[in-house]
Amino acid sequence: MDNERASNHHLSGIIVIFGGTGDLTKRKLLPALYNLVCEGLVPENFAVVAVGRQEKTREQYLDEALAAVSRYSRNQIQAPCWEAFKKIIYYIQLDFLAADEYNKLQAALVQIDDKHTTGGNRVFYLAVAPEFFEPIVHSLHTYKLVGGERGWQRLVIEKPFGRDLPSAARLNQQLSQVFCEENIYRIDHYLGKEMIQNIMVLRFCNPVFESLWNNKYIDNVQILLSEKAGIGSRGGYYESAGAMRDMVQNHVLQTLSLIAMEPPVALTPDAIRNEKLKVIQAIEAFTPERIKQDVVFGQYGAGIQSGQAVKAYRDEEKVDPQSNTETFVAMKLYIQNFRWSGTPFYIRTGKRLGSNEGKIVIQFKTSPPVLYFSNTLAQQPNVLVIKIQPQVGVYFQFCTKKFGSSEEIVSATMDTSNDCYTNGNTPEAYERLIIDILRGDTTLFSRWDEVEAAWGFVDQIIARKQQVPGDFPNYQAGTMGPAQAEELLARDERKWWD
Amino acid sequence: MDNERASNHHLSGIIVIFGGTGDLTKRKLLPALYNLVCEGLVPENFAVVAVGRQEKTREQYLDEALAAVSRYSRNQIQAPCWEAFKKIIYYIQLDFLAADEYNKLQAALVQIDDKHTTGGNRVFYLAVAPEFFEPIVHSLHTYKLVGGERGWQRLVIEKPFGRDLPSAARLNQQLSQVFCEENIYRIDHYLGKEMIQNIMVLRFCNPVFESLWNNKYIDNVQILLSEKAGIGSRGGYYESAGAMRDMVQNHVLQTLSLIAMEPPVALTPDAIRNEKLKVIQAIEAFTPERIKQDVVFGQYGAGIQSGQAVKAYRDEEKVDPQSNTETFVAMKLYIQNFRWSGTPFYIRTGKRLGSNEGKIVIQFKTSPPVLYFSNTLAQQPNVLVIKIQPQVGVYFQFCTKKFGSSEEIVSATMDTSNDCYTNGNTPEAYERLIIDILRGDTTLFSRWDEVEAAWGFVDQIIARKQQVPGDFPNYQAGTMGPAQAEELLARDERKWWD
Repeated sequence: MDNERASNHHLSGIIVIFGGTGDLTKRKLLPALYNLVCEGLVPENFAVVAVGRQEKTREQYLDEALAAVSRYSRNQIQAPCWEAFKKIIYYIQLDFLAADEYNKLQAALVQIDDKHTTGGNRVFYLAVAPEFFEPIVHSLHTYKLVGGERGWQRLVIEKPFGRDLPSAARLNQQLSQVFCEENIYRIDHYLGKEMIQNIMVLRFCNPVFESLWNNKYIDNVQILLSEKAGIGSRGGYYESAGAMRDMVQNHVLQTLSLIAMEPPVALTPDAIRNEKLKVIQAIEAFTPERIKQDVVFGQYGAGIQSGQAVKAYRDEEKVDPQSNTETFVAMKLYIQNFRWSGTPFYIRTGKRLGSNEGKIVIQFKTSPPVLYFSNTLAQQPNVLVIKIQPQVGVYFQFCTKKFGSSEEIVSATMDTSNDCYTNGNTPEAYERLIIDILRGDTTLFSRWDEVEAAWGFVDQIIARKQQVPGDFPNYQAGTMGPAQAEELLARDERKWWD
Repeated sequence: MDNERASNHHLSGIIVIFGGTGDLTKRKLLPALYNLVCEGLVPENFAVVAVGRQEKTREQYLDEALAAVSRYSRNQIQAPCWEAFKKIIYYIQLDFLAADEYNKLQAALVQIDDKHTTGGNRVFYLAVAPEFFEPIVHSLHTYKLVGGERGWQRLVIEKPFGRDLPSAARLNQQLSQVFCEENIYRIDHYLGKEMIQNIMVLRFCNPVFESLWNNKYIDNVQILLSEKAGIGSRGGYYESAGAMRDMVQNHVLQTLSLIAMEPPVALTPDAIRNEKLKVIQAIEAFTPERIKQDVVFGQYGAGIQSGQAVKAYRDEEKVDPQSNTETFVAMKLYIQNFRWSGTPFYIRTGKRLGSNEGKIVIQFKTSPPVLYFSNTLAQQPNVLVIKIQPQVGVYFQFCTKKFGSSEEIVSATMDTSNDCYTNGNTPEAYERLIIDILRGDTTLFSRWDEVEAAWGFVDQIIARKQQVPGDFPNYQAGTMGPAQAEELLARDERKWWD
């Protein structure tokens, strides 16, 4: 971000983190903020106010922050950085539901404003459970922490943004009474990842790729977001979410829309989000018959992962022993527009899978069955892989003559991810997103109509699933999901690229 | 060539090398034959008869062969291989011009036939100066070394095949009286190189490349064959040849035709050569005006190369101090067909240049000047480089987002040549070509009509050059040629990819 350093300095503001002692703050937000401080990327007039229900002094909070940053930051703790970081971190105790305490918060922010010359600019970052979104925003409004003469106020909402279309619409309606759309940052940290941001550059700066980016040349697209982890201690949340709400509604559909969208008229947030929205709107509606055929739900049973025995989903903490929640989804979908009609998109995501990765596979159509492929020689297609995590880069597979052979055709691969970058060197997604919020750039955040369309899509599928209880568990932890997910592609004479 | 081992064993024959004590035999043919023996790729019934004017015993010849193979072979000398090699090598003294000695040769070959069960199959390999081609072939005919009942006879001719269209036609007419076209192997060792053979595979097995392989997507193509070496002791030959005859008429035009040709109807030698021929026939004829504008001749002056002072061409041995021979050519040409009309091909070849390489650069058209390129940001085009020598492989340049930056676009590269292969591991061109001759595969050899068309093309340019003496020397040894070669592309707002 070297060339952005200068421009960031004229920004200013306070980030107010609700849920300042929570997991997300410790694992992601504090380390990201520390890294931004280390790299000189925070504005000069800047402060962070962690707001939590627990009673503690600023010093106690800083001790906890030090432990968190030491553990999760990609930069090591260094004295000068830490000193600079300490100076901008505050802690304020607050019961989110006790409306009258918001006056205390307002007073504290005004003081910090004076001290750091932050000009009344505020980012209210809701790193809290969803049930607190509405009361907090309501109190921010009631106690006039939003509006007024000085500065801007922005709201950052972590997922889940609702649990279906009606609840999301209700939430949005409430937030909209306080914040206008352009000040609501619905965060999807997946969009902060390097290669997700790189999709547009790869497509629109490389005529070699974009010229082929359609149903004439692309046989199918595969999106994989796999996790080795189970649900950990999040059973309460996950039971009412499942993979459809937890992954498909947000990360998967956002990734899909970046891959499939038309070139926007400009690189402005709304021009880009207009095109992304059109992709989701163009997804072919699923009939009950197609859901049965083209959507595979899974739930993990006990198994072995990384050499350790792990338990079944139904045996996890806070999970119903008869739970019907899906921890895996695979599906085939079509985008019915001129660019993509006829090219299937296969998506697959789940927990307790055999790999931990995010990637997009573009499989190109094969050559006509003449010349080298006129006999029985199996043809390896051209494949472009955009690796999102843990490796970050681009991989390309093409055919070449085997060296020293007169005729044998083999696959050669080109891979930038092995050469240049490892995950450790890429800025954490949250760093990028925090900077964007301060700059007022909403490109990487979901607009309401996108969220709305995504819920519309997943709701139809979830509704169908609830009518037909799955035969769970149907895959062993540590595998790549149920056998039906393999069959989904085998039926089309295709396979997942693993 | 592993999978070909079995099929090679049923072949049999004697390779008769005229010029058995010459430079080509020692540097290329004997090492290639030794390598084929080492790798078990020669047929079981096989022998090599070196024919030379010098009086020497078989033992003396083997001593010389050992020295040559030790020096030039990519395989080290190992006792078992060498023993096997020795068993199949013979030496016969012969004055090529003394016709009556051919009876002696015939008698010797019949004896070797019996010993090695080679069934009368013969490869007559003319590794001699061009003035001997006709007398040797004439004597082979007169003394009935060609024709008869037993086996096949093939003729291998090294370049130069004539020095212009009339002399080439005359030579061909003479050879054709003795050998039919399908038994004449006009060798262009450049076609034996791995990546030259790989061009068809890269194009026709990769829809990603072939779909873009035309004037809609390709901005220009560049072919570079540069040599650091000067002319060495070959002044006598080079003075009457020059870069046009020495490089353009054969290697450059052959490479060009593989890059530009339409897919052949089959992978048969004639189907491929039909398409290559069409490319040369479709090269737009040069008007005198266009030759003046689009062809640059050069001749090296003294300079520094690899830290050594080197002399000017005109000061080389056996070179006229007023010589007007070109040691460098650069030109722009158009292939006037539906695929290539409007896409220029730039070719450049020469001696005493700053690099020693063979490569083909495919520069794709750039994106429209919108989105990332709507401002002053310079756009790096997509570039595919086929590296022929000394590195062997494929290089691809594309645009990507700079890691950690929100907007900066940088070039990333993918390169198979660094990863997998080095020149040392690729079979020498001659090994491949010798095997092909034994198999009777003429694909990698030039057919007469190709040679004819190539002479037609270069003759028109040479004719014009002779009318207008160059202002030589016009480039310093160790540079990339005369300034006009840079201007040739600069005029079109392009540049050579170095």
